[in-house]
Amino acid sequence: MSSLKVSIIGASGYVGGELLRLLLDHPEVEIQQVTSSSHLGEYVYQQHPNLRKRTSLKFSDPNQVTPCDVLFLAMPHGESQRKINQYAQTAPKIIDLSADFRLRDASLYTQYYGETHQAPEWLGRFVYGLPELHREEMRQASYISGVGCNATAANLALYPLVKAGVLDLSLPIIVDVKVGSSEGGATPNAGSHHPERSSVVRTFSSYGHRHTAEVIQELGLKAVHLTMTSVDLVRGALAAAHAFTLPDVTEKDLWKIYRQWSESEPFIRLVKDRRGVHRVPEPKILAGSNYVDVGFDFDPQSRRVVALAAIDNLMKGAAGSAVQAMNLMCGFEETTGLTFSGLHPI
Amino acid sequence: MSSLKVSIIGASGYVGGELLRLLLDHPEVEIQQVTSSSHLGEYVYQQHPNLRKRTSLKFSDPNQVTPCDVLFLAMPHGESQRKINQYAQTAPKIIDLSADFRLRDASLYTQYYGETHQAPEWLGRFVYGLPELHREEMRQASYISGVGCNATAANLALYPLVKAGVLDLSLPIIVDVKVGSSEGGATPNAGSHHPERSSVVRTFSSYGHRHTAEVIQELGLKAVHLTMTSVDLVRGALAAAHAFTLPDVTEKDLWKIYRQWSESEPFIRLVKDRRGVHRVPEPKILAGSNYVDVGFDFDPQSRRVVALAAIDNLMKGAAGSAVQAMNLMCGFEETTGLTFSGLHPI
Amino acid sequence: MSSLKVSIIGASGYVGGELLRLLLDHPEVEIQQVTSSSHLGEYVYQQHPNLRKRTSLKFSDPNQVTPCDVLFLAMPHGESQRKINQYAQTAPKIIDLSADFRLRDASLYTQYYGETHQAPEWLGRFVYGLPELHREEMRQASYISGVGCNATAANLALYPLVKAGVLDLSLPIIVDVKVGSSEGGATPNAGSHHPERSSVVRTFSSYGHRHTAEVIQELGLKAVHLTMTSVDLVRGALAAAHAFTLPDVTEKDLWKIYRQWSESEPFIRLVKDRRGVHRVPEPKILAGSNYVDVGFDFDPQSRRVVALAAIDNLMKGAAGSAVQAMNLMCGFEETTGLTFSGLHPI
Amino acid sequence: MSSLKVSIIGASGYVGGELLRLLLDHPEVEIQQVTSSSHLGEYVYQQHPNLRKRTSLKFSDPNQVTPCDVLFLAMPHGESQRKINQYAQTAPKIIDLSADFRLRDASLYTQYYGETHQAPEWLGRFVYGLPELHREEMRQASYISGVGCNATAANLALYPLVKAGVLDLSLPIIVDVKVGSSEGGATPNAGSHHPERSSVVRTFSSYGHRHTAEVIQELGLKAVHLTMTSVDLVRGALAAAHAFTLPDVTEKDLWKIYRQWSESEPFIRLVKDRRGVHRVPEPKILAGSNYVDVGFDFDPQSRRVVALAAIDNLMKGAAGSAVQAMNLMCGFEETTGLTFSGLHPI
Repeated sequence: MSSLKVSIIGASGYVGGELLRLLLDHPEVEIQQVTSSSHLGEYVYQQHPNLRKRTSLKFSDPNQVTPCDVLFLAMPHGESQRKINQYAQTAPKIIDLSADFRLRDASLYTQYYGETHQAPEWLGRFVYGLPELHREEMRQASYISGVGCNATAANLALYPLVKAGVLDLSLPIIVDVKVGSSEGGATPNAGSHHPERSSVVRTFSSYGHRHTAEVIQELGLKAVHLTMTSVDLVRGALAAAHAFTLPDVTEKDLWKIYRQWSESEPFIRLVKDRRGVHRVPEPKILAGSNYVDVGFDFDPQSRRVVALAAIDNLMKGAAGSAVQAMNLMCGFEETTGLTFSGLHPI
Repeated sequence: MSSLKVSIIGASGYVGGELLRLLLDHPEVEIQQVTSSSHLGEYVYQQHPNLRKRTSLKFSDPNQVTPCDVLFLAMPHGESQRKINQYAQTAPKIIDLSADFRLRDASLYTQYYGETHQAPEWLGRFVYGLPELHREEMRQASYISGVGCNATAANLALYPLVKAGVLDLSLPIIVDVKVGSSEGGATPNAGSHHPERSSVVRTFSSYGHRHTAEVIQELGLKAVHLTMTSVDLVRGALAAAHAFTLPDVTEKDLWKIYRQWSESEPFIRLVKDRRGVHRVPEPKILAGSNYVDVGFDFDPQSRRVVALAAIDNLMKGAAGSAVQAMNLMCGFEETTGLTFSGLHPI
Repeated sequence: MSSLKVSIIGASGYVGGELLRLLLDHPEVEIQQVTSSSHLGEYVYQQHPNLRKRTSLKFSDPNQVTPCDVLFLAMPHGESQRKINQYAQTAPKIIDLSADFRLRDASLYTQYYGETHQAPEWLGRFVYGLPELHREEMRQASYISGVGCNATAANLALYPLVKAGVLDLSLPIIVDVKVGSSEGGATPNAGSHHPERSSVVRTFSSYGHRHTAEVIQELGLKAVHLTMTSVDLVRGALAAAHAFTLPDVTEKDLWKIYRQWSESEPFIRLVKDRRGVHRVPEPKILAGSNYVDVGFDFDPQSRRVVALAAIDNLMKGAAGSAVQAMNLMCGFEETTGLTFSGLHPI
Repeated sequence: MSSLKVSIIGASGYVGGELLRLLLDHPEVEIQQVTSSSHLGEYVYQQHPNLRKRTSLKFSDPNQVTPCDVLFLAMPHGESQRKINQYAQTAPKIIDLSADFRLRDASLYTQYYGETHQAPEWLGRFVYGLPELHREEMRQASYISGVGCNATAANLALYPLVKAGVLDLSLPIIVDVKVGSSEGGATPNAGSHHPERSSVVRTFSSYGHRHTAEVIQELGLKAVHLTMTSVDLVRGALAAAHAFTLPDVTEKDLWKIYRQWSESEPFIRLVKDRRGVHRVPEPKILAGSNYVDVGFDFDPQSRRVVALAAIDNLMKGAAGSAVQAMNLMCGFEETTGLTFSGLHPI
């Protein structure tokens, strides 16, 4: 049986590298082309040293993309919206991992990104890239966006509670997200310098983070309050969503909601144990994995629920969800190429 | 001039070691005795290797304490309340770093500690050990408690706002605290094992943390919602307090509140810059320092304020505040022996 | 086609967990039984949280092992030699990951382990577990030992040079090994406590390390000088072997030796680049991978060669080599179940 | 008594910041001027956040230096030799922390730095900046160089053994140095990017490191083999020097050598314990301290001695030694302003 031909535009960054790692091992696809303008002509393993001896691909010119079956776009913010018409002629199916096509509403884009969208007519053609929320639409889709990693942690922490209607939405929902350094991408900066970044606990976005828009859109909330803090970790994000339930909700109700959801989803695991070290969701054991570990605590006295979701930001928060979306869009088994369990200890 | 004679009961733990470090360099005191039942007879530097060549003290028997001027108690939870009458005969001034005498109300103690206090008659004699809140009382005190490290971060994040009356107390106050591993003390456990603890983001107390009681008491709040998360850091805690202001409060008002407070306090620094790496309070540069770095962000649209306070949990959150309290209680300059600035980078 | 039935004795430790991770995904085997006396009856994922939702196996009683095709022994030092006769009746093929059957010479065992071997008659029946050195013997073997992780890093750094006969063996060979914390196993101790182990550079075995015996045996050297230093890393070991070449050896000769070797071995990669960040072997990108990254530097003036080998101590240094050995012993493709490339960044 | 007026040229880097921290607390000096061309006009605490509230100094123009008593030069490599004549007119005493005036022999400079020295006539006027080796010369000196941090660790590991004449110098001496990230300075680069630098074990200089020249010069050796490896640590370096003793040397001899040396030196501590976690020199507890922890292990069978020296590379390996040198040069007590003990845990 002939393989699906896929190409990646912008494959030298961390998300591009993770996509490459997944697609090289994916039994249904063949990588046709990977591009990088800054590393043109270099071997892929010079940027992604884990892929040494796994591929002899070189980075090719992003201006010379040949037709393929599925095109992944992993370019810096703002480029996809300028080139979407061109790329749509190269491939019938596109998955864009940037933020350009995540929002359905051009005015929400303007509000959070502070600029006018360059291809608003395309916003309606894209499906938001979180399979747990848009599985059925993806099976019919030709264009799928990526997801924001912080938005994904927040969305998956809150989704079952919002869907079940158990939250008191008249009270604020605070989502405190702790993130690793890979979230900032592969380009060094003053804040990513090891002496400054090691052992750090640095709140870098108290309010107004762009991913907030994806949470509002996907959960249908009027407002949600996200705060981001960098911690000493390379891969991973943990969202702690602090919300309040409606009066009659019990811990048992919450258990039922989470159990049903995690049992019906291939990549959602409920972690809520009474003993041992591993009682709650933790991002570190998810490095390289597409799993999402979710958990919750409920204080019946104050009715505060703390909903936790841990992910690998480069996997479930980017490349993993994208490959899962590709599987759905192309009719493959949803979990194909995504079953890596993570490592322990790490 | 003769020095003050001080002794430390329970000096082999991390807080005890930090007290020792401070008191060895304190120009007004002389360390008379340091005790440890588990390390009896050992040189102090065997447990506190940084003090090698700085002292030839050995750990002595906690049951053979000789009279002194000031006695520091750094014992495990629950022991001070059982031995306070005995120790009160050994020294006219006592600073107890445990949780035993932090609360004024025995019923609050029972609620948060799940047991009856063994010396409730002593609760009223102790001053709560945070100098920024009880400076004048300390000057007259004979008995001062320690502070909870997480409580201290939360209290100092929220104190100026609560005192100024700018918060809308009808909305919940969420305090998300990130903490380092030294907070767990010097005894290894399954969760502190390096392969399990390295790179961790582990929420260990979503609600009901005992330090909550100290925040309620000291700020006079009806409720406050603390959640603790362990991160990869040895020393340090960062509290992010999410609260909402009353309608007419402006960012300028908040600036004024913080500026006045930080200018009037020797160890409070306001960190809120627009440029550079060091724009917000971060615990890592406070290792070994008694400074508290505070900051805030204000979203005028939602009226959410995110108040940040970073401390070294072993210093401002324990030994540093205790020595500051001793200075006040004994009539020394408040900052004596506490001027170490912290290190950068670290 | 029926699967191979395998069981693991002592599956609750880190090496046991890694074996489980590999074998659960191995297409040719079925895990029949995993035992643990300390965690009897618990779900496997309580100790190995990465395996949650991947297996519903529970730990069973090590005293009630049922017959199987291949038995992996992952018990503490000294137990295998006492029970080998019993286990040999349970399975026709055994892979013992402990140090008990790594040495061929009982007197070498006594010299390095300070005790008499309890089953010296079995020493000759085992093949040393490093496939790169014993591939052909493994195809015929029924009993294969594990490998010492530090020995593996040292052996693979030096093997091509020793085999090619380019070293001046009249001069000392120093092997300075830097290791991660997972090497110490899953049981906490005073030195593995996070506040003491984080950021550590701690030389714990300047000479006389037990793994030295495996290097002497496998490379046929009269002496080799190993020194171990713990660094802040969970998984991984890097050996830097400092040796001196015979007079006429050139850098070109060394290139040729390494190139031929790495091209002929499925898991050996030569890393020696002139540009970029990833110019030398580094253990961190090998977490979870069976690859070995090797490299060298040669100072023609002094004729010193610094030979580097990076591994994941739990993979190539333990479970990975064991599964590779099983593949050879059972006639499977050597790389089956071992193709995980590692992650970048991590 | 009037204070000594000191200025620092190039004060925005890590070494400059550490000098500032020390000098701000030094009782005998007053900081007159600190310069930075890249941060001209900024407050010092914007680059050195630990100094917030400790100084209101701003960075001034390096081209407008006013006369002072002691001038510290902390500029990038190569600048001091070009400007030394100019600076010598500004201050009667100069301490240059760069590598420019560390070597006495211009040809050794050319060999290791690959360029011709621009002020060779000045080489003889400088004293090498390690007080433990040049104490008496410093008391008479006007010009003192800095020290290389790796050279300092290597020199202090080997010095007592070389001086005592117990080493067999016909056998090679290998010095394997592990270093933290602050050694690379304050400017980010691809290799210092946190995702690439965290958890790293990266050998970056197998042979030919420039600091080798300082070891050869100071110990009077014909050759010494240094290899540098980056590990996950911000401050600190550990040198493990592998050497071989002459035939009749015993462990007792070595003990005596180290004991006498450490007892006679204010900042040298001998760490060689049989029990506990802290049995060997470790850099982490030396952060911020001018102490050097030294130790050794001796294998009588092979006569290999492993000599260990741990330092804080920014203190004993740079600013600390410089202030110690200033104390000697200016007639102050040698330890003034340098008694910080380090922190534990950290």
